[in-house]
Amino acid sequence: MSFELTILGSNSAAPAHSRHQSAQLLRVENQTFLIDCGEGTQMQISRYRLKLNRLNHIFISHLHGDHFLGLVGLLSTLHLRNRTDDLYIFGPSGLNDIITLHMKYTETVLGYKVHFTSLDPINSEVLVDNEHVNVSSIPLDHRIPCTGFLFREKIKYLKLKKTNNLKLLTSEEISSLKSGHDVMGQNGKVKLAVSDYTESPRKTRTYAYCSDTRYNESILPFIKSVDLLYHESTFLNDHKQRAYDTFHSTAHQAASIASKAQVKKLILGHFSIRYKDLDPLLSEAAEVFPNSHLAVEGQRVSIEY
Amino acid sequence: MSFELTILGSNSAAPAHSRHQSAQLLRVENQTFLIDCGEGTQMQISRYRLKLNRLNHIFISHLHGDHFLGLVGLLSTLHLRNRTDDLYIFGPSGLNDIITLHMKYTETVLGYKVHFTSLDPINSEVLVDNEHVNVSSIPLDHRIPCTGFLFREKIKYLKLKKTNNLKLLTSEEISSLKSGHDVMGQNGKVKLAVSDYTESPRKTRTYAYCSDTRYNESILPFIKSVDLLYHESTFLNDHKQRAYDTFHSTAHQAASIASKAQVKKLILGHFSIRYKDLDPLLSEAAEVFPNSHLAVEGQRVSIEY
Repeated sequence: MSFELTILGSNSAAPAHSRHQSAQLLRVENQTFLIDCGEGTQMQISRYRLKLNRLNHIFISHLHGDHFLGLVGLLSTLHLRNRTDDLYIFGPSGLNDIITLHMKYTETVLGYKVHFTSLDPINSEVLVDNEHVNVSSIPLDHRIPCTGFLFREKIKYLKLKKTNNLKLLTSEEISSLKSGHDVMGQNGKVKLAVSDYTESPRKTRTYAYCSDTRYNESILPFIKSVDLLYHESTFLNDHKQRAYDTFHSTAHQAASIASKAQVKKLILGHFSIRYKDLDPLLSEAAEVFPNSHLAVEGQRVSIEY
Repeated sequence: MSFELTILGSNSAAPAHSRHQSAQLLRVENQTFLIDCGEGTQMQISRYRLKLNRLNHIFISHLHGDHFLGLVGLLSTLHLRNRTDDLYIFGPSGLNDIITLHMKYTETVLGYKVHFTSLDPINSEVLVDNEHVNVSSIPLDHRIPCTGFLFREKIKYLKLKKTNNLKLLTSEEISSLKSGHDVMGQNGKVKLAVSDYTESPRKTRTYAYCSDTRYNESILPFIKSVDLLYHESTFLNDHKQRAYDTFHSTAHQAASIASKAQVKKLILGHFSIRYKDLDPLLSEAAEVFPNSHLAVEGQRVSIEY
């Protein structure tokens, strides 16, 4: 089962140094999630030959242009390509006003239904919970309301122990046990217990997306021990005060968060246009948290189990 | 004096086949004009290393996304790059609502002043008239209100005839004659007549931008004899009915307009995503109007005199 992140944009504020604005695609099994959608995201998707036929959920962290200005164009292109499946968009409440105003003036009625959910920037919420994945929000600390996202894989089927004589079981009983449900006998008591017939499920994989935010340890409980953390690192630590003033983080701070949350791997991104060479950001983070990496556009990051 | 067009986007509806959405930069002497601004225009400007420090006027033909979705991002980037000069934007009235809503939700106050002028889609108007150029609007025939633009070079200084004994004239008298003003004597009569001392001014150069529009001969008076005409040619003529239904033109129709208006040169653009190979569009147009050319992104088209 795949759990793979593709970086589409790694820069903050404006495109520069051949880097684009924030956008990522996460694939979990047969589902595709788009996280932020800066200007040009649809071109990046095309450049890296990514498919959108399994895209049903879009998450927009906040309403700074570098995180959402590609959205209306993408919605239009999906319409032109004859999409009919419902699309679920999660974002700050104002985003719906912006989409609606565009559709009004372009006199466009999309050929598919958009379900918009307004995010609560203060309290974490469960946004999606289906057979493959659970997505919840992470309140961040930014100049305007801003939300991160935690993706947690779900395991649909448990693995049966090979030591049991499974041939004696009916297909309905096997299906029930694999789904995590005890099989009940006619006397109303448990006939076949899940714990007897199945192996302990493997650990589920997790990805946390945190952009944009000041250094703030209040996010630690949400991202504790995740397999992969993306944390913005707009500046080097010599611009710590500027990071604070603009509600951003430094590479050192991103790594400190990763270390304190005991995550497995950190990806740095949302780089300031002032940095053409990003190696100093990586070095600064790696001193605090060795398994730090730079967001590289087009790169696919798989989380194995 | 330069009069040079750079194509930034040549495709309609959605980016495809490495082609982008409508946008062009026109340079007249030391002034830069942006005509339409599809998503990714600021990246195209950067790709072709074009400068925006002389950009003071932006013209948006209509509110279909492929003609304006790059505008808010561009305004934001100009702000981040510390622009302070006033910027003049001309577009359909709804565009101002869209810009205003974005600035509200992003909580952005631009560091420069934007003067917005709402276009009249029915009647031609003079939009800009300064020492170097006159820009007027061309009413087009599209599904939603849509306006083309006519750029007409102005000649600031007349050329003095070499046969006259200019040494006898003061610098003030020469300056007055070059500016087209007769020099008056103390008796209140003309002392030095412009017509005696200056050559007939050369023909001024003209560029007409017509996108998007159905075939409609009502534009002929506006574009009569222009040096360069850009006319949309979304389809081949075998899709003539589809062109009509969607308020677009075919390559044959664009060339017919060019021929009837007796323009010098035609550029075809706004190509449907259905055409990867554009040669058939060019061939179709060239049969009607031989000096037809395809819009090629990054290409600079100079009009010489």
